[in-house]
Amino acid sequence: MKPALYTLGQLAERLDASLRGDADKPVRGLATLQEAGADQLSFLANPQYRKYLGDCKAAAVLLTAADAEAYEGDALIVANPYLAYAALSHLFDRKPQAAAGVHPTASVAADAQVDPTASIGAYAVVESAAQIAAGVTLGAHCVVGARSVIGEGGWLAPRVTLYHDVRIGKRVVIQSGAVIGGEGFGFANEKGVWQKIAQIGGVVIGDDVEIGANTTIDRGALADTLIGNGVKLDNQIMIAHNVQIGDNTAMAGCVGISGSTKIGRNCMIAGGVGMVGHIEVCDGVFVTGMTMVTRSITEPGAYSSGTAMQPAGEWKKSAARIRQLDDMARRLKELEKQLAAVTSGGNASSDA
Amino acid sequence: MKPALYTLGQLAERLDASLRGDADKPVRGLATLQEAGADQLSFLANPQYRKYLGDCKAAAVLLTAADAEAYEGDALIVANPYLAYAALSHLFDRKPQAAAGVHPTASVAADAQVDPTASIGAYAVVESAAQIAAGVTLGAHCVVGARSVIGEGGWLAPRVTLYHDVRIGKRVVIQSGAVIGGEGFGFANEKGVWQKIAQIGGVVIGDDVEIGANTTIDRGALADTLIGNGVKLDNQIMIAHNVQIGDNTAMAGCVGISGSTKIGRNCMIAGGVGMVGHIEVCDGVFVTGMTMVTRSITEPGAYSSGTAMQPAGEWKKSAARIRQLDDMARRLKELEKQLAAVTSGGNASSDA
Amino acid sequence: MKPALYTLGQLAERLDASLRGDADKPVRGLATLQEAGADQLSFLANPQYRKYLGDCKAAAVLLTAADAEAYEGDALIVANPYLAYAALSHLFDRKPQAAAGVHPTASVAADAQVDPTASIGAYAVVESAAQIAAGVTLGAHCVVGARSVIGEGGWLAPRVTLYHDVRIGKRVVIQSGAVIGGEGFGFANEKGVWQKIAQIGGVVIGDDVEIGANTTIDRGALADTLIGNGVKLDNQIMIAHNVQIGDNTAMAGCVGISGSTKIGRNCMIAGGVGMVGHIEVCDGVFVTGMTMVTRSITEPGAYSSGTAMQPAGEWKKSAARIRQLDDMARRLKELEKQLAAVTSGGNASSDA
Repeated sequence: MKPALYTLGQLAERLDASLRGDADKPVRGLATLQEAGADQLSFLANPQYRKYLGDCKAAAVLLTAADAEAYEGDALIVANPYLAYAALSHLFDRKPQAAAGVHPTASVAADAQVDPTASIGAYAVVESAAQIAAGVTLGAHCVVGARSVIGEGGWLAPRVTLYHDVRIGKRVVIQSGAVIGGEGFGFANEKGVWQKIAQIGGVVIGDDVEIGANTTIDRGALADTLIGNGVKLDNQIMIAHNVQIGDNTAMAGCVGISGSTKIGRNCMIAGGVGMVGHIEVCDGVFVTGMTMVTRSITEPGAYSSGTAMQPAGEWKKSAARIRQLDDMARRLKELEKQLAAVTSGGNASSDA
Repeated sequence: MKPALYTLGQLAERLDASLRGDADKPVRGLATLQEAGADQLSFLANPQYRKYLGDCKAAAVLLTAADAEAYEGDALIVANPYLAYAALSHLFDRKPQAAAGVHPTASVAADAQVDPTASIGAYAVVESAAQIAAGVTLGAHCVVGARSVIGEGGWLAPRVTLYHDVRIGKRVVIQSGAVIGGEGFGFANEKGVWQKIAQIGGVVIGDDVEIGANTTIDRGALADTLIGNGVKLDNQIMIAHNVQIGDNTAMAGCVGISGSTKIGRNCMIAGGVGMVGHIEVCDGVFVTGMTMVTRSITEPGAYSSGTAMQPAGEWKKSAARIRQLDDMARRLKELEKQLAAVTSGGNASSDA
Repeated sequence: MKPALYTLGQLAERLDASLRGDADKPVRGLATLQEAGADQLSFLANPQYRKYLGDCKAAAVLLTAADAEAYEGDALIVANPYLAYAALSHLFDRKPQAAAGVHPTASVAADAQVDPTASIGAYAVVESAAQIAAGVTLGAHCVVGARSVIGEGGWLAPRVTLYHDVRIGKRVVIQSGAVIGGEGFGFANEKGVWQKIAQIGGVVIGDDVEIGANTTIDRGALADTLIGNGVKLDNQIMIAHNVQIGDNTAMAGCVGISGSTKIGRNCMIAGGVGMVGHIEVCDGVFVTGMTMVTRSITEPGAYSSGTAMQPAGEWKKSAARIRQLDDMARRLKELEKQLAAVTSGGNASSDA
């Protein structure tokens, strides 16, 4: 795979950007303002990094018109440099592209439907009545369970498991180690012994979803677990049975969502957040890192829990004091009462 | 695989339930009270959902005798509708059943013992001297390490790793991506450099255990890591070396248990809980979600830590105040002293 | 594989230890002081366990000279019994050693370089231009992506995924289910829709690193994600894109580090810790379990957050009080003001 090579002019054309500088200058990669070399393109998205423009050695920089005025080097002038960087990043991606066709070592059921433009990797397993649409890449060691469906243009890294009856939309990206459709945690307690409840629902995943490495999404207990269009899930996220996630909601790593919880659209859930089951979170909610969400959220906005980090010695004192808080609150109230008595007593005596 | 079909009469017979209604009515599935269609069975377990009985369109509902009085449609009357639902759920499970025998692509060591009624999936690896008992299903891409043993009736999803010397009881279910017997985190620090300690213990897992997707259970450092009978572990749980878990204890997703901690029987550990190492938790303990357990628990009951979620703005104030708590406590004490002085001073002067 | 057998004399020689007792006594394993049988060696590292010396039935015990005085049985006298135990542990490790060579079922690209002393397991996939150095063990079902490199003496458990352009140093151990080089969580928001940013950096891992089961390390967005020499990562850790971890830093299970955060050398990060992105943690920092690290740490030392566990009833009160803390702080201040007024008022009147 030879390295990508574009001219500044070609990149300007792709972005419909205004080019300032040498249209024939070669660009072989992307880098930050501080690290970019003479054949790399850079970008300024965060105003905090404007200070690095002066010493920037990049072939050119993606800039807004306003920032371009303060820069003397070559520039591609665009409305949104970060989106322009996102668009160009794919040109320089060295991720191998798999050839169409079924690898000779793959195991595909006779009644599975695999589009001839799909790529089925080494040792992949496609079970009975599964459907793999056009342009799908199924990495090595992937397992697609019975009757499961992967829509057009999907890309599954090596070693992704889809259980049976999992329906995935178009252009969905799933990283290695993800498990979709596992049996949720359903047990009925009979005199101290847990009886298993079969998980007879499936999983339905919309279009343009991304699912991170080692993330798990359980199948529904009765109805399906539902992941909306454009949802982005980072690594090691745990989505329990019958959770519903609205369109374009994004979750960072290590989030855990308990069963039957329903999350709205365009939410951002930061890393390590945990949510109890059977609650609802409305559209447009931002939950900060490691927050424990134990009740429904009905108003858009930002929510948090947890305590701030301290040196361990000070923390021990704070932690001990928290356990005394109820007592402190009572004593505070008592003081207020006493002081009021003293004050009014004082008044009384001054009256006298 | 054709859809399951039973008559109400057949289901009543299986449950030893009292049938009220048409014994020949066909039932093709299970659904909630709100979603059930005319050929689906439903159930009422949570009194909160009694309000949905009125509009329920189900073929019949699993009800207690008391609830059946308030419902006019067909019913299967049972002592415990939730347990009855759990029992029937397996009839409607579309999980494919694997055929007995070793898949031609599997790799089984010459000296491994595989019962002829067991099913060994595609590309599975069974290493030297491993034993696979009757009725076991080993999914595609599973690895069973040297001398490891899987007891009768076990069901392993595709892509489960058992390292060497892992002993698993009867009827154990393990979801995809689980890793049993990995090398625990054992290192001795020599002048700043970590020296690895070989993990020479194994893992012993009891009967009727369930292990969730991407859960990891490390092998013992010296003796074995021990998981009791009937233990249920959800997804993405981390069990460190030499942990012991008592019979019928259940843990929800994303729990982490540090090395050598010993948990009793019939405990319930909610999602995201973390426990430090070398502690003991007695039988019958319930730990709420995301609690940090830093000491042994010697009394049954419920335990918690963490702070309640707030809007981020209010949370920032709370978090800042927590860091001032020790100071606040001292000032409160000082106030009490001063006020006592004032009060007694006042008394003294009034005495005078 | 026959069990290991050494004489006390042989073990003393290996450790350069002073032997007290029967040099010909056979040793077949290692065990704790309480559990060791007559053919097992034990050790005393933690002074807390000194009480078990009296009843110890071990063949011999690894002891310091001082502790050996208080023990009557056979002993191997060493400067550091824990390090001595670590060294000997490998003699008794029953982990199978893989034979050199490529398993007939493995799929190795024509232009990959595999050293003849390396072992490539069943169904392993080695992609184009990958390099596997001398003495490497690649477990069953491992995938080594295009141009990725594994240095001398590496040991990869079954089912490890390395994406393309991952460079791994010498003697690196990676447990099952780990995913190295997955695409990080990079998206640019365009009017509510997330646009993917190609992750064109790689991952560089130093020598003597250990990576736990189901741990994920994402590739860089632009430059590489960097893991220093001697770093030890436990299970289910999440390392986001462009994180940098300094030499000999150790992290326990379930830690999550957000993008571009830089951690120094010789740090210890306990289980369940979460760090936000774009911060720096200096050398020699110890972060206690489940701490939420939301800002840079510039001084070595121990740091914590979170609240102490309480019985759930008491916890509910504390949690409610924390939400009132800001109000309590204001009332406290008000009381101080009022009391000062009363006191000064009292003084004034006593002056009068």
